[in-house]
Amino acid sequence: MSSSKTQGKKVALVIGAGDATGGEIAKRFAQGGYIACMTRRNADKLQPLIDEIQQQGGEAYGFASDARKEEQVIELIEHIEKNIGAIDVLIFNIGANVPCSILEETARKYFKIWEMACFAAFLVGREVAKRMVTRQQGTIIFTGATAGMRGSAYFAAFAGAKHALRALAQSMARELGPQNIHVAHVVVDGAIDTEFIQTTFPDLYAKKDQDGILNPVHIAENYWHLAQQPRDAWTHELDLRPWIEKW
Amino acid sequence: MSSSKTQGKKVALVIGAGDATGGEIAKRFAQGGYIACMTRRNADKLQPLIDEIQQQGGEAYGFASDARKEEQVIELIEHIEKNIGAIDVLIFNIGANVPCSILEETARKYFKIWEMACFAAFLVGREVAKRMVTRQQGTIIFTGATAGMRGSAYFAAFAGAKHALRALAQSMARELGPQNIHVAHVVVDGAIDTEFIQTTFPDLYAKKDQDGILNPVHIAENYWHLAQQPRDAWTHELDLRPWIEKW
Amino acid sequence: MSSSKTQGKKVALVIGAGDATGGEIAKRFAQGGYIACMTRRNADKLQPLIDEIQQQGGEAYGFASDARKEEQVIELIEHIEKNIGAIDVLIFNIGANVPCSILEETARKYFKIWEMACFAAFLVGREVAKRMVTRQQGTIIFTGATAGMRGSAYFAAFAGAKHALRALAQSMARELGPQNIHVAHVVVDGAIDTEFIQTTFPDLYAKKDQDGILNPVHIAENYWHLAQQPRDAWTHELDLRPWIEKW
Amino acid sequence: MSSSKTQGKKVALVIGAGDATGGEIAKRFAQGGYIACMTRRNADKLQPLIDEIQQQGGEAYGFASDARKEEQVIELIEHIEKNIGAIDVLIFNIGANVPCSILEETARKYFKIWEMACFAAFLVGREVAKRMVTRQQGTIIFTGATAGMRGSAYFAAFAGAKHALRALAQSMARELGPQNIHVAHVVVDGAIDTEFIQTTFPDLYAKKDQDGILNPVHIAENYWHLAQQPRDAWTHELDLRPWIEKW
Repeated sequence: MSSSKTQGKKVALVIGAGDATGGEIAKRFAQGGYIACMTRRNADKLQPLIDEIQQQGGEAYGFASDARKEEQVIELIEHIEKNIGAIDVLIFNIGANVPCSILEETARKYFKIWEMACFAAFLVGREVAKRMVTRQQGTIIFTGATAGMRGSAYFAAFAGAKHALRALAQSMARELGPQNIHVAHVVVDGAIDTEFIQTTFPDLYAKKDQDGILNPVHIAENYWHLAQQPRDAWTHELDLRPWIEKW
Repeated sequence: MSSSKTQGKKVALVIGAGDATGGEIAKRFAQGGYIACMTRRNADKLQPLIDEIQQQGGEAYGFASDARKEEQVIELIEHIEKNIGAIDVLIFNIGANVPCSILEETARKYFKIWEMACFAAFLVGREVAKRMVTRQQGTIIFTGATAGMRGSAYFAAFAGAKHALRALAQSMARELGPQNIHVAHVVVDGAIDTEFIQTTFPDLYAKKDQDGILNPVHIAENYWHLAQQPRDAWTHELDLRPWIEKW
Repeated sequence: MSSSKTQGKKVALVIGAGDATGGEIAKRFAQGGYIACMTRRNADKLQPLIDEIQQQGGEAYGFASDARKEEQVIELIEHIEKNIGAIDVLIFNIGANVPCSILEETARKYFKIWEMACFAAFLVGREVAKRMVTRQQGTIIFTGATAGMRGSAYFAAFAGAKHALRALAQSMARELGPQNIHVAHVVVDGAIDTEFIQTTFPDLYAKKDQDGILNPVHIAENYWHLAQQPRDAWTHELDLRPWIEKW
Repeated sequence: MSSSKTQGKKVALVIGAGDATGGEIAKRFAQGGYIACMTRRNADKLQPLIDEIQQQGGEAYGFASDARKEEQVIELIEHIEKNIGAIDVLIFNIGANVPCSILEETARKYFKIWEMACFAAFLVGREVAKRMVTRQQGTIIFTGATAGMRGSAYFAAFAGAKHALRALAQSMARELGPQNIHVAHVVVDGAIDTEFIQTTFPDLYAKKDQDGILNPVHIAENYWHLAQQPRDAWTHELDLRPWIEKW
């Protein structure tokens, strides 16, 4: 699943462009001159996004890739680096919460939530970092959540995964920073304007009228900002929340 | 692997009594009138500990049990609750760090460190909490580490696991507290006086002469203190570190 | 305002024994063999406490002293060290919140809340630390609050003061720890069983029936525990909250 | 001390434009169409900055004002609001550290460091917030430091002041956010390229060659970014540090 041709442009890779956020981030980096590479489990669904980026004069590629599978991750990164371009920006944007009492939580779901939000981030982060280190250049941004900052009732699995993701971001930032690789963690605190929220939490979605849920375009602008920071003034963590959100 | 007989006494279960810390905790609770149940992977090695507790007039049982295996955990808890007594205190004391560059970390090791320090804690915590909830009574203590508070270079795996463990502790504390179950997280910050430290880090161990490494007996006293707190004044997190430790 | 005579016993000095907490802490240390020295603004009100400690066979002294006044603090510490004994334990227990919108907060009140909860702690902490350093021995405990961990609407003044207090505790702990002086910060999170709560917040006080407010005797026990920790396993921060408290 | 005339433009007020950071922030907002109002204790020194902004087509005003004096702060804000324009952005940028052992710290200096970094922020923040609330619009940014996140040996005074500043920012953000006032705290972690660092810490300054100290122009760009965030995606805290800084 591909796009037009490349010449010397750098790649921004968005792992998890299945929701509006990943898609808007990809578009923002494409507008900024990056080749947008995007993954989700079903690549067909990426086609509209690719079309949109191309119509705006950008370059984009979509991939079906399960970030929890080491071989698939290795293969994906190799393919992009060999055939498309050097990955200069990596955005990891996967993770889903399914709240549950600790008394009812299954081992399978507890594992899967961690696997998706944290283990996949480790796999992709490591593989991309290996390349960035050889170039002594790059930006890696992990999409975090409030659950990464504190545990809550019914959030044991998701909070665990997001805490571990934050620890990954900090550990990578401290190891790779002095190699000129900027690793940042974005704490998204609030509902995002997505189809999922619209259909599942209509009451939450109703706050959109007063800017009470996050606009993916605005989230994307902050990721772009992070990736543009000169290295004498890097941000390693920032939060994003609607003005009326309780925190 | 058993001990003398029981009548109405409560059980303190120590998961991971393989090092000095778990052993001293078990002894402390046995001295306080609890039946000490202890696990490690090789139960034979628990025999000296059981003997010691019995010689002091206490009651103790050892189990070979792999806390990462759900069936084994379920079986263990069922066995203790049915044949020995109600688990009133659970101490989870497993977790090992093997520092590594993020560039070299293997998926297998990243997973295993999480599985041991966090997933096992989830399994045991959930199974025991199910019983405690029916009695509306109990104490659960997780042994944490500084790596649970902040990520560091070469600590991505361990920091991730310990962050997730802390999130588990907080989530359980917030859900189960109002059911009269006290969940606490102890941040052990410093080397402990163990054979492992003595043989692997002799320079660190040399600090013992000036009380620069943690004495497991003193760690145990703090666990005992936590378990004795009346419910109007519970501690959910405390740190333990030697006076000369940098932090 | 004095008590019976002294011989070689160590002093535990409680700054702010005006409420039930400070009083119970003083009693606990007196029971443990310390000479209890206590301050509040009106020393007459300390007499019942002194009487009670003496009747239990303890030794106690009360002082009218305003901890916000440098000269008074210097004089107090000099007097105790010269005439009563070496201050081995210092407990700082002052601080009051008067919630207010940031838009209405007066400069005078903003200052006074800081002066009482933080500046006074600095003055007393410094003066006592000077003596403890010469002996290379001592314990200093600051009573903190949830407001020291996070700011909240209408809490700008109190949160500022308590954050600054926590910073003082951490800074002193890091500087003085290697001189064998144990500095700890106790985060009291919840209403305490005091006359003030009983009369001002009767709804809150009603939670007492279910152990929903902190018993000063139990708070005191934790201060005692901290002061007894051997130096290889010091706690620098612990929280105390009722089982049903939201956090 | 004034500049050209105004018509409908909004004011960005920088309290503490005495160092390079405040000056660059003022210039950045002037470039973005704001009237830059700046204070420092000696207003004469602001003239070159005003000249520079005017030569770039901007509008700027300088004021001698001591932010620790309530009357001066009230007068300043009244003057600007009446004669220049509505303050839409407030940047508080004062604070200085003078490290000292807790044993040697004077009450006067402990107070002054708090007065400058925190009390002044309260005074200015409150006065400006009063106006912003009537317009239901505005951005307030406080310049924080690593010392606002943790206390350290010899940093008791500065850490206390910066912790209190952070508490102020959080408390104001939580109270004023739902009134459409965006309050943010920027954690500057590292040396800044200023004359002070150049002359006082030449070794630190030498890191400039490798982008190891913060460029005030880049700091300013982040403040600008914060002030431009749409209200569905506000950042309440971000850190800024050089790539090679230890953290």
